[in-house]
Amino acid sequence: MEIFQIQIPTNLVFGKGTQHQIGGLVKPLAKKVLLHYGGGTVKKLGLYDDTKKSLIAAGIDFVELGGVQPNPRLSLVYEGIELCKKEGVDFILAIGGGSTIDSAKAIAVGVCHDGDVWDIFDDKSQITAALPVATILTIPAAGSEMSVSAVVTNEEKGRKYGMSSDFIRPVISIVNPEFFTSLPKSQLGYGVADIMSHIFERYFTHTVNCDITDGLCESILKTVMKNAIVAAEDPTNYEAWAEIGLGGIIAHNNWLGIGRSQCWGCHGMEHELSAYNDVAHGAGLAVLTPAWMKYVYKENINMFVQFAVNVMGVQGSFRDPDAIILEGISRLQDFYKKIGLPQTLNELNIPESAFEDMAKKATGAFFGEEHGVGNFKRLKWQDVVEIYKLCK
Amino acid sequence: MEIFQIQIPTNLVFGKGTQHQIGGLVKPLAKKVLLHYGGGTVKKLGLYDDTKKSLIAAGIDFVELGGVQPNPRLSLVYEGIELCKKEGVDFILAIGGGSTIDSAKAIAVGVCHDGDVWDIFDDKSQITAALPVATILTIPAAGSEMSVSAVVTNEEKGRKYGMSSDFIRPVISIVNPEFFTSLPKSQLGYGVADIMSHIFERYFTHTVNCDITDGLCESILKTVMKNAIVAAEDPTNYEAWAEIGLGGIIAHNNWLGIGRSQCWGCHGMEHELSAYNDVAHGAGLAVLTPAWMKYVYKENINMFVQFAVNVMGVQGSFRDPDAIILEGISRLQDFYKKIGLPQTLNELNIPESAFEDMAKKATGAFFGEEHGVGNFKRLKWQDVVEIYKLCK
Repeated sequence: MEIFQIQIPTNLVFGKGTQHQIGGLVKPLAKKVLLHYGGGTVKKLGLYDDTKKSLIAAGIDFVELGGVQPNPRLSLVYEGIELCKKEGVDFILAIGGGSTIDSAKAIAVGVCHDGDVWDIFDDKSQITAALPVATILTIPAAGSEMSVSAVVTNEEKGRKYGMSSDFIRPVISIVNPEFFTSLPKSQLGYGVADIMSHIFERYFTHTVNCDITDGLCESILKTVMKNAIVAAEDPTNYEAWAEIGLGGIIAHNNWLGIGRSQCWGCHGMEHELSAYNDVAHGAGLAVLTPAWMKYVYKENINMFVQFAVNVMGVQGSFRDPDAIILEGISRLQDFYKKIGLPQTLNELNIPESAFEDMAKKATGAFFGEEHGVGNFKRLKWQDVVEIYKLCK
Repeated sequence: MEIFQIQIPTNLVFGKGTQHQIGGLVKPLAKKVLLHYGGGTVKKLGLYDDTKKSLIAAGIDFVELGGVQPNPRLSLVYEGIELCKKEGVDFILAIGGGSTIDSAKAIAVGVCHDGDVWDIFDDKSQITAALPVATILTIPAAGSEMSVSAVVTNEEKGRKYGMSSDFIRPVISIVNPEFFTSLPKSQLGYGVADIMSHIFERYFTHTVNCDITDGLCESILKTVMKNAIVAAEDPTNYEAWAEIGLGGIIAHNNWLGIGRSQCWGCHGMEHELSAYNDVAHGAGLAVLTPAWMKYVYKENINMFVQFAVNVMGVQGSFRDPDAIILEGISRLQDFYKKIGLPQTLNELNIPESAFEDMAKKATGAFFGEEHGVGNFKRLKWQDVVEIYKLCK
């Protein structure tokens, strides 16, 4: 186990009807709030009205900015920063999924940053402050409601970049799984694939003596998979969604990643798919993850046998570890298929002609500074092309 | 799953050598510190010197109060409160095990409380504020380093009482498992029994649909047991202690207890053993827990079958669930024995003649206000006597 530090001050409020608490929770922390959201969904859910009512009842002054799209756009972030500065906003409330929360986090940083907020995503500047962000979650997936990270797409440059800082961990997050029961089936798959990937990125490591976090990763993976099947069959099942929602929070608040080196290769490779063709993040991850596993497992056979046995339930002769591992990967693919996820880049309309450019962007080679991607096996752009090819 | 709320702002710093960070971490939060500890152990470990050096290097003013005993005494708490008021202390740093941390928490509350701090333990007053508390842990067991609770013994009244509040969750906790490798073997057993009990008190519930937290409880129980055997055989094994230490933190910071009703019957019954005869808390729990299981399991056969199968690894015919459960309990007893824990109240020098008084104190009947103890099965004093008798 490696030395680690963790601090998660987010006030997490979870369960039916909890959205009505938002006004009272925000009141002591805010003078003027930016209410940030996407579009129709929060209105259809009644959440938009509930939130406004609760803010008004608590006597909280607020302005609004809607229009967040999946793979949230930098242009809207700029708009939000301007609005906050003009209106003297000191607190941001995001209602929606990971895209809305990430957009809110980027605005929160931008308001406190001299210069272009994109410089932070582009690693040219550091985060030194941010407005506090609260969230009411409508899609369990990104884990952004309790995480230190945010991902934004620079549509002009065709790039999707992340940032990470304790300053952007939400101060309050309300999670009511009732909202999840009306999600379209595709969102279940996308969300579950993203949740599982947040665990995989932490789970697959060369760090040894991580029994506690190994066990937590395996336990949450199995529970989320079990309940995903239930929710796929009956999308109105509140209890299954509650398990997926809670799993999604723990998957990304970093309790599972403490004391171990982390990978983040699949996320790095996927961001280029989303940037290229606005692919849903979870769909891209479901396609890439099994291919990544096949490409890298020989780096640490024991780790992958552990995955196949402890997570995917494979039994068999340990004298043929490759067979155990490949069976585990195959079961993972079957699971993704069962919850409606795509299996190939072809299904995502990403042609082979795009592979080299995407691989070079993912690894930095495109910009003349190849740093590679992922830590379990540090992938060069040629490796990434090979993995993309395995997904054809 | 039930509605829940959780917020853990503790800054946890974990690993080798981390105690040297204390001055830098405390500096922004404190003007004058009370350094609180027990006796020889922190001096023998070099921790007392390390801490003072780090505080001095950071330019932090501090006063000292040593002398905390196991099952920490109210009299020393009173002394600490007076000292803090006289010296204008605004921050408490506890270095030691659960007793020292709990003593520090009680002082932290007492300084901010008008009137007798015992009234809070005695449920006559509420906690409305507390000084911030930081900790450097030397024994993994109580979980107090990241928990909201503290237990203190009123030696005059012969009573051991707990209090619980977000105000007393430590703001900083440093955990360096190197300190654990020189603990006497008895402390390993006591600590592990306490850690496991913190999980059992949350695990055994009638709340259904708690897959995530069920899985987390089971995973940590298994990992702690596995590593306890390793540390019992080789007490110098840093990695085994790191797993036990991290398990102990998660066992009691309440991530395992969210969304489910909790029991706390064994803790309630054990506190009377410690108050009667200064029994080590973990020793008392190891004696009581299997007896409690035998006495209550018929309240929820399925929950106890799950325990026997998922935690204790029992296999067999599910057509005889009682046999599966009793085998699980028997394996738990064997495990306790293997790590050097007592099996009977006789070994703890608690005679049958004391049972009725202790049972009546645990349930409140002694004070003419019987409220019972534990939630899995609400135990009356007669039930508690029966459980004590099962431990003879």
